[in-house]
Amino acid sequence: MIGYPNKKKIVPKVNNYANLGMTLESDIDETNRYYRSKDIAIIHKKPTPIQVVNVSYPARNKAKIVEAYYRTPSTTDFNGIYKGKYIDFDAKETNSKTSFPLSNIHEHQINHLQDVKKHQGIAFLIIKWSQYDEHYIIFIDQIIEFWNGAKEKGRKSIPYQFFKDHCLVIPFNYQPRLDYLKIIDSLI
Amino acid sequence: MIGYPNKKKIVPKVNNYANLGMTLESDIDETNRYYRSKDIAIIHKKPTPIQVVNVSYPARNKAKIVEAYYRTPSTTDFNGIYKGKYIDFDAKETNSKTSFPLSNIHEHQINHLQDVKKHQGIAFLIIKWSQYDEHYIIFIDQIIEFWNGAKEKGRKSIPYQFFKDHCLVIPFNYQPRLDYLKIIDSLI
Repeated sequence: MIGYPNKKKIVPKVNNYANLGMTLESDIDETNRYYRSKDIAIIHKKPTPIQVVNVSYPARNKAKIVEAYYRTPSTTDFNGIYKGKYIDFDAKETNSKTSFPLSNIHEHQINHLQDVKKHQGIAFLIIKWSQYDEHYIIFIDQIIEFWNGAKEKGRKSIPYQFFKDHCLVIPFNYQPRLDYLKIIDSLI
Repeated sequence: MIGYPNKKKIVPKVNNYANLGMTLESDIDETNRYYRSKDIAIIHKKPTPIQVVNVSYPARNKAKIVEAYYRTPSTTDFNGIYKGKYIDFDAKETNSKTSFPLSNIHEHQINHLQDVKKHQGIAFLIIKWSQYDEHYIIFIDQIIEFWNGAKEKGRKSIPYQFFKDHCLVIPFNYQPRLDYLKIIDSLI
């Protein structure tokens, strides 16, 4: 059976999805830090949206949040500027060997990336295939075909073969860790 | 006396800084919603960065954050894309009648806006002068002169007169509430 990625749960076995998710995010964070330090691009991760319900003030100048909940992000996780272009993307991971489930993407994220594209920004996802340890960039136009197909024909995923045939692998190195702008460079 | 535009709450006194700040933010949020709905620009406020320390799971699928703290933002509050250009700004409010204190701006925000400018983005602050009920746009290049002056000559603020002489007032209307892109338009 295919093991679907579930970043929220803590599972007491070898594949700790929470950590894998963290690794992808921290690989991108480290890459962005490198880009900024070398003056290549200014790209940041947005903070996780949290709904604060209750705050206490145990000490002066130090508000302590005592009740809060995670909210669904209204956009993607990463954005910024590269060579004067607006860049916007999210990062997803799958443990499948055969297909990337579209249920991993929220509809508002798709809409947001389409809006970005329409306004001449560069909009994409970074997909990590954990089983192959490969990272691909897939652009919003490519995703949309499958997304619309999912609605019309009941297709629920993007085959791994599509990535092999139509997407570029992001080089994984020591520095920068995950050089996704190298792929973007081939386009602009 | 000037009637302050304050539609959201009933405040029993005139100067409530926290609430005034909320109003400025909600005016910008509403403006951004308008821009998005009319397909004019895709600009969002970033979530407030929060350091989560402790989470409990009182019910399935509903993580409850029980200990967390506000963190200092590493960038500005707002960014996005307009006419293919990357836009990045923060919003500040002052109750002074004579000068905007530079202590209202964090050094990392100045550095971030300078980086954005260097990479061909549009970087600025929206400053609300509560006493005059005026909103100005001041660009990073203009701020920098005062910022460097603050270091060299001990100047700690930007005079109101500078805004009157060198900055443009943002129109305040019913819709869009705070049409700051009209000012940006005169530049690009």
